[in-house]
Amino acid sequence: MRTRFQQGLDELKQKLLAMSGMAEQAVDRATQAYQERELKLCQLVLEGEQAINMMEREIDELALDLLAMQQPMAVDLRFVTAAMKINADLERVGDQAVNIAERVINTVSLPEAELPIDLPRMAGAVSGMVRRSLQSLIAADAEMAQAVLQMDDVVDRMNREMFHTLVKAMHDRPEVVQQALDALLIARNLERVADHATNIAEDVIFWVRGADVRHHAAT
Amino acid sequence: MRTRFQQGLDELKQKLLAMSGMAEQAVDRATQAYQERELKLCQLVLEGEQAINMMEREIDELALDLLAMQQPMAVDLRFVTAAMKINADLERVGDQAVNIAERVINTVSLPEAELPIDLPRMAGAVSGMVRRSLQSLIAADAEMAQAVLQMDDVVDRMNREMFHTLVKAMHDRPEVVQQALDALLIARNLERVADHATNIAEDVIFWVRGADVRHHAAT
Repeated sequence: MRTRFQQGLDELKQKLLAMSGMAEQAVDRATQAYQERELKLCQLVLEGEQAINMMEREIDELALDLLAMQQPMAVDLRFVTAAMKINADLERVGDQAVNIAERVINTVSLPEAELPIDLPRMAGAVSGMVRRSLQSLIAADAEMAQAVLQMDDVVDRMNREMFHTLVKAMHDRPEVVQQALDALLIARNLERVADHATNIAEDVIFWVRGADVRHHAAT
Repeated sequence: MRTRFQQGLDELKQKLLAMSGMAEQAVDRATQAYQERELKLCQLVLEGEQAINMMEREIDELALDLLAMQQPMAVDLRFVTAAMKINADLERVGDQAVNIAERVINTVSLPEAELPIDLPRMAGAVSGMVRRSLQSLIAADAEMAQAVLQMDDVVDRMNREMFHTLVKAMHDRPEVVQQALDALLIARNLERVADHATNIAEDVIFWVRGADVRHHAAT
């Protein structure tokens, strides 16, 4: 028979999955908005922020309730505190999507500039990291979480290449400085999303292995 | 007589204060390194990262120990979980200092460029926010925490002004594009430190008032 505590843990996992879906969708929409110069998508991202914030509070309250129950086992304790941290990271992923949407609104107000970069490819990699990090939580799979850490290196590389391309564009074509800067800042927002996915993966590894691998991750 | 739990809480507060001091110092050193083009200070920041990371782990373990003790009261539960989140924010303040130091190393390798901005002023405001947010935690003072949220608006304004100044410099003087971009990215790192201080202040308010003001903060 399942205890009330077990049921609470399951609910916590389900809510985190839902939260992660909302955060990923926001990032995808914001990047699509950049690609298609589509202000309606920006609006959806801005409007969706509140739902993400409400979900964050719900998850926090649920986690606090679980902690208040009598003496959870050490491994459960670590799971619940990891869930609270992961929750905060997902909310900040949503914030990054909002930052991207705001940047897109700015860039759409400027003349369109041809820039030799592939932001959707980076966004796809980054969304994949968020998704995999949550999957690794649900599956309690430290190896899957470890794979997320390796994906972060790929994203860092994409970001560095884009950075050089865009700085060169700013240098050579002063008339596109603002558009190139917008693209560069969006790339950095995506990199921050990847950092949050990395934090989540590290929290999963910490919980699953019971050992703290943060700051010792394979790089 | 003080209980073992109370002693643990006091130790947790002391360690968080120490952690905050380390993180602030790293930010101050990194900004000073920018101002003085001083690579030795960058080196100190890079070397200091490990101590901050070790402290983060210590604080997390202490918090988990406290949660594992028999049935802490609801208010204490909220304090300990807030402490874990604040701990994560302080560690990321340290990461920002490292990012700034790396950016300074890049900019020092380039010819010096005269740029009409005042990064140390922004850094001073940002360090003040981190310091005040921790003071508000120790004093359990929600009003002081609220003041940190208002300081964030000032920092945002400084950042926006600097942004416009630097974009204009990039546009008008292609030969300083890279130096201006370095300054712009450092300003954004400082803004992220301010965001972490804001997160901390919100966690303090959440704990002190027992009500969730996150996302409803006075702006």
